[in-house]
Amino acid sequence: MNDPNPPSYPKLPRNTVQRYKARGTYDYQTIHKIINTTPLLHVSFNTPSPDDPFPAILPMIGFMGSFTNPSASLSEPLDLYLHGYISSRLMRLSDLGTKNKKGEEENEEEEQGLPLTISATHLDGLVLALTPNAHSYNYRSAILHGYATPVLNNEEKLWAMERLTNSVIPDRWKQTRVPPTKAEMMSTQILRVRVVDASAKVRAGEPHDDRKDMGDEEVRRRVWTGVVPTWVQYGEPKGAGGNLVDGVPEYIAEFVRRGNEGGRRDAEEAMRKH
Amino acid sequence: MNDPNPPSYPKLPRNTVQRYKARGTYDYQTIHKIINTTPLLHVSFNTPSPDDPFPAILPMIGFMGSFTNPSASLSEPLDLYLHGYISSRLMRLSDLGTKNKKGEEENEEEEQGLPLTISATHLDGLVLALTPNAHSYNYRSAILHGYATPVLNNEEKLWAMERLTNSVIPDRWKQTRVPPTKAEMMSTQILRVRVVDASAKVRAGEPHDDRKDMGDEEVRRRVWTGVVPTWVQYGEPKGAGGNLVDGVPEYIAEFVRRGNEGGRRDAEEAMRKH
Repeated sequence: MNDPNPPSYPKLPRNTVQRYKARGTYDYQTIHKIINTTPLLHVSFNTPSPDDPFPAILPMIGFMGSFTNPSASLSEPLDLYLHGYISSRLMRLSDLGTKNKKGEEENEEEEQGLPLTISATHLDGLVLALTPNAHSYNYRSAILHGYATPVLNNEEKLWAMERLTNSVIPDRWKQTRVPPTKAEMMSTQILRVRVVDASAKVRAGEPHDDRKDMGDEEVRRRVWTGVVPTWVQYGEPKGAGGNLVDGVPEYIAEFVRRGNEGGRRDAEEAMRKH
Repeated sequence: MNDPNPPSYPKLPRNTVQRYKARGTYDYQTIHKIINTTPLLHVSFNTPSPDDPFPAILPMIGFMGSFTNPSASLSEPLDLYLHGYISSRLMRLSDLGTKNKKGEEENEEEEQGLPLTISATHLDGLVLALTPNAHSYNYRSAILHGYATPVLNNEEKLWAMERLTNSVIPDRWKQTRVPPTKAEMMSTQILRVRVVDASAKVRAGEPHDDRKDMGDEEVRRRVWTGVVPTWVQYGEPKGAGGNLVDGVPEYIAEFVRRGNEGGRRDAEEAMRKH
């Protein structure tokens, strides 16, 4: 990161990293990249039921992008697009707009949409130290806050569906039977999330033990310390029973190769950083 | 699963799987196993601030177990133990107990503790179909609802810390510098979550395309369908700069081997099931 003041999300009390503050970062590039390289996001929101104290959590797929500026880079302001089903009752699309917890009407223009918290985490390694307390993980995680509305414009929806499909395997969309039928368009829910603040936390490097333990040679000669790198591995693609295409297409084989090389490289890189 | 009525969590409206109901399951064994084999859980809860509509999400480590019945199997009732920091302000440990969203006092004996929603997801494969709409993931995911209180009993805390450490790498605890010092005990927060309901969703098998697309031979000859299995891979353990132990200990090397063999096996198994 060469830019001393990279384009960033605002620091508000709710997204300011409280613990291990030095690991916190707010810049668009870091946060957007974490989202766009995580296969699954965890999305949390409150349900309208006043008797239910538990937020909902749904695993969903998503990506950061801009429909109005489709070639925007990750270091620019972007929206989050999500695919996964949230019922219209939960979306609270009534004319009442949204209420905050005090039951007051929010300004409809500003606050319209379902408040969501989105989490994405990459596990990069198991960090083994002299003591259990000093054990840790190497990881990259991002938390986003935003307001979600369903995408109703068909052009935007189609664009988002293509980007989502290609976020799983690059170039997959055009290799399938597209465009979607009208029924498929109607049965697919895409949400656009206006992200209002976000943060990322990253831990990389070796274990850090405290001075007293590091001064205890008996312990140091007995306890192995270091990092076990971890990443998501892709195995050999297996054709379905009904598959009629001979052999695995090159773009899929390339995705598997690059995914595995890149995963290993990122995890080994994470072992080395301070 | 041979038992037609396995020990299970209750089905309440808030944990009943709504979409693809056939994938929903409520039995202890399935849910507890998912939790105990996931390196990271996502934990969501509401903050006391009435102006903040966004739930918090924290990635945390955890395991299912019973302090009073430590040899209980996964198919029995268990508590969830979590490690990770939630501030005491958020834990709302005041004598006010907990309030539901209407601001009413909950019965302190029944409801004491911070309401948490916990999510754990294993990604088992990318399911590639003839159309983007029919694309999916093979996965195993669990959602739990419960009430969290900090573990104050030192014996229970120590037991949980050992179980947590060993949930990352089996046998690691006894290989480190233990027991923890008083300061380490005090600075470690362990939460016990009384789980009140839970559910799991599992998708396994091949892609499922609709009849019309399966009848279109032009599409079928062009579009490769099948599954790319995925799992968490462990790389070669790397000793820290300050590590004084020669070579990687066998229990760590064994963990890496078994983790990789088991990960690949589970993902390939998930490709085959219906």
